[in-house]
Amino acid sequence: MLLLIIIIKCSLAVWPIPARWWSSEGRNATVVVSPQDFSFSGGGGKSRVLAAAFERYRDIFFPHSTTTTTADPAGVVVEVADPDAELGDGDERYSLRIVGGWARLRAATVWGALRGLETLSQLVEFDFGTERYTLRDASIVDGPRFAHRGLLIDCGRHFEPLPSLRRLVDAMAYAKLNVLHWHLTEDESFPMPSRVHPELQGKGAWSAGEKYAVSEIRKFVEYAKYRGVRVIPEFDVPGHATSWRNSHPEIFASGCGSDAKRGALDPGKNETWVLLGSQLADWAALFSDKFLHLGSDEVPSSCWNNSFDLEFMKSQNFSTFEDLYDYFVKRVVDLVPSRNHVILWDEAFQDATPDPARVVVQNWHDATLLRDIIAAGYRAVASPNAYWYLDHLATSWETMYAFDPADGLDGLDDDDGEDAPLLLGGEGCMWGETVDPSDLEPTVWPRLAAIAERLWSPRNLTADTQMAEPRLRAFRCLLLARGVRAGLVNSSLARSPPPNPGRCDQ
Amino acid sequence: MLLLIIIIKCSLAVWPIPARWWSSEGRNATVVVSPQDFSFSGGGGKSRVLAAAFERYRDIFFPHSTTTTTADPAGVVVEVADPDAELGDGDERYSLRIVGGWARLRAATVWGALRGLETLSQLVEFDFGTERYTLRDASIVDGPRFAHRGLLIDCGRHFEPLPSLRRLVDAMAYAKLNVLHWHLTEDESFPMPSRVHPELQGKGAWSAGEKYAVSEIRKFVEYAKYRGVRVIPEFDVPGHATSWRNSHPEIFASGCGSDAKRGALDPGKNETWVLLGSQLADWAALFSDKFLHLGSDEVPSSCWNNSFDLEFMKSQNFSTFEDLYDYFVKRVVDLVPSRNHVILWDEAFQDATPDPARVVVQNWHDATLLRDIIAAGYRAVASPNAYWYLDHLATSWETMYAFDPADGLDGLDDDDGEDAPLLLGGEGCMWGETVDPSDLEPTVWPRLAAIAERLWSPRNLTADTQMAEPRLRAFRCLLLARGVRAGLVNSSLARSPPPNPGRCDQ
Repeated sequence: MLLLIIIIKCSLAVWPIPARWWSSEGRNATVVVSPQDFSFSGGGGKSRVLAAAFERYRDIFFPHSTTTTTADPAGVVVEVADPDAELGDGDERYSLRIVGGWARLRAATVWGALRGLETLSQLVEFDFGTERYTLRDASIVDGPRFAHRGLLIDCGRHFEPLPSLRRLVDAMAYAKLNVLHWHLTEDESFPMPSRVHPELQGKGAWSAGEKYAVSEIRKFVEYAKYRGVRVIPEFDVPGHATSWRNSHPEIFASGCGSDAKRGALDPGKNETWVLLGSQLADWAALFSDKFLHLGSDEVPSSCWNNSFDLEFMKSQNFSTFEDLYDYFVKRVVDLVPSRNHVILWDEAFQDATPDPARVVVQNWHDATLLRDIIAAGYRAVASPNAYWYLDHLATSWETMYAFDPADGLDGLDDDDGEDAPLLLGGEGCMWGETVDPSDLEPTVWPRLAAIAERLWSPRNLTADTQMAEPRLRAFRCLLLARGVRAGLVNSSLARSPPPNPGRCDQ
Repeated sequence: MLLLIIIIKCSLAVWPIPARWWSSEGRNATVVVSPQDFSFSGGGGKSRVLAAAFERYRDIFFPHSTTTTTADPAGVVVEVADPDAELGDGDERYSLRIVGGWARLRAATVWGALRGLETLSQLVEFDFGTERYTLRDASIVDGPRFAHRGLLIDCGRHFEPLPSLRRLVDAMAYAKLNVLHWHLTEDESFPMPSRVHPELQGKGAWSAGEKYAVSEIRKFVEYAKYRGVRVIPEFDVPGHATSWRNSHPEIFASGCGSDAKRGALDPGKNETWVLLGSQLADWAALFSDKFLHLGSDEVPSSCWNNSFDLEFMKSQNFSTFEDLYDYFVKRVVDLVPSRNHVILWDEAFQDATPDPARVVVQNWHDATLLRDIIAAGYRAVASPNAYWYLDHLATSWETMYAFDPADGLDGLDDDDGEDAPLLLGGEGCMWGETVDPSDLEPTVWPRLAAIAERLWSPRNLTADTQMAEPRLRAFRCLLLARGVRAGLVNSSLARSPPPNPGRCDQ
């Protein structure tokens, strides 16, 4: 019988920090493992997601080629209770027990197993002196605090080609994030393809090459799914839609002039609803996620206010901007296929009253709004601009880390004192005004990792920013080693170049 | 019989611009090709380099997945005269003839065939509206102006992990560059492994993870070779070597104190030569290239000058710094295995007289030195800091492009009026003071592409910077689409973020 001395360590070099762990410091608690003799098995053998993860994680566990072999086999054995559970159904919990180079990984779903493989990958160590990998005995019981842990990526202000997006998804999986909120149409450009109105992309994209193809979007959604990342597309209407005007000026409100820098769709025209109806059906069919994001933020009021003398406004007895906005929001939600739920920015809560049964509200204004949103019965996603806007370069990782979306929700917790069930989670928002593929990664990372730990790890383990810092520095080095171009952990402005020669964790 | 109307075009969207081309504008001159029906064949079937390139270029030709198929097969047929020619033996010329979707690619070596495949890849166009690829009839006869077209990457001031280096090599192949000058040891850190003195890396690296392993260096050299890129390692001695002192203080000159920020090896000690001898033999055996770079620049003179009262100096009748430097340079070159030639920075020409039969001089001071170096019978590599230092952020691509290393060499041309045979080529130098993986790519690209065209394309086609600009902008878009994070073409400082929303060629 193997006798182990179990000691609770103060820290574990895993990001985000697992909910509970024990790690052995005893003699013989560290075992040499080798790429040649390490097996990945289990999971029922019928999950293609898991089979692909085994392939992928073999390279991630063992990034350095070595000829070292060991006498003893080692490996990870995966047990998945329900291998057919869909991504988005939520259960990402797992447990991991490592003894003598063998890891037993248990999860309810393959999505939980993916998280466990990631944790295990961060526990494999390499010694360059001996060219040997080692694995230490440990036990971990882990699972996410919030179900929705995301990144918004804006592909309208600058185009992000798929290699950029795939690398984002890779890194999101390293940080156990699970939602890519893909902002696909903007005032500035329209890279999104359409099977019913190809002219939207044809005339709306930045250039002939800065577009996505239908088949590659499908492939990318699958790519993300294999890494446990849901793709939620956003088609922002009725504002932030000026690029639609290049091909369809007839659906734009005339109040602000036909060449206003920022236009707005005209809710008073039948053509608007005909086009939106067919287009949203086309797009909803292309994406597999339950959620669809329809924006609804920052409608340029001048485009509508000057139209209130029009017959339509009179016929509906609308007298204010909010009347018309409420009408737009409700009607556009009704256009969406019934299997979809709709996410809208928080103007839709402040200035309208959509159906809470179908609408999730994403908070981007003041974080204090979260309480009102949830108290009104809406599901909420937190991304307040004062804390979680990645384009705010002066917002430090500490500020992002210290913000807890559950603060201020006292009394809205569930019966067990857990976080309010209507608080789905949050997102870091990478708006694209000054971000293109050349500077995307160091603007996103490592700050998004701070948000990732806030959303994954328990509150009691993440109260202290100083405690987190050495692990975040180590995680930055891990990202670099895996080919992700994370910026410096500490710099007064994000994406600043290193000022001097130095270490990866400087 | 197929009748073609051949028109010489003013420009071809290929970077670097081929030496000669004809492109057809006639009817039926553009053919739809599809990934499913496009074949790669020829090359004798026995070159693994070519077989791997076929795999790689299939994805590069056809980056967007599409379900379009065509009735007619198409493809590229490769003819290689000497498939066994080694990389570094030089012949990279190729010809390409494209008619009706079929390309015939002829080259003397597989290395030339790689260049031709790259050119062909830049001629395949994709239309997002129809989701179709097309290929236009064209004929190209091409080859490099200079044999040595490189990039120096400094992995001592910041560590660059292998994923960063592999992506550099990928992009170098896109720009038809063929030399990676790998600066592997510096004052600041020592990421290079050693099989004879592992303590050098053990105590000299930035951290436990910021090191290379012997086996992965071998694999990386092979990776580069498969892309037609030679790897020339640099071990800079006797200056820029302070990180050696962490494990071997006994080989350092005492003149500047044992803890001087910048030390220098001591040529007067036997231990120095014993260690250098075994270490250089170890490293020379690990790399396959004929060239080895031994630095020799910027020796801190105070470390030596104060030692001239020592017995060794007296015994040799040395009275000046230059006496001792000349002794060091000659002796270190003699230590290198005879199959290797040695590259040294231009101090070795200015202050010493190494053997021109074994030593190549790399010019980094004023470019006017090039003439003197070549006139003295040395082979030369150009990288003058006023033009080709990529860490000089204010040096624009136009400045890099306009510099021609052959300027000022009148009278040193060969008999046919071609460039001086002793001018091997040049390198862009990416010194690492403020460059780590987070900002490496936008600091290197697209400016290195300007150097690449200068070194590849004929002088008469590259005289006009304005003519080159639209093609360079298009090449930047191509780099982004292939996952290379090139910075803006026009910005007053390299690696500046885009100031506003915009196109990839803004």
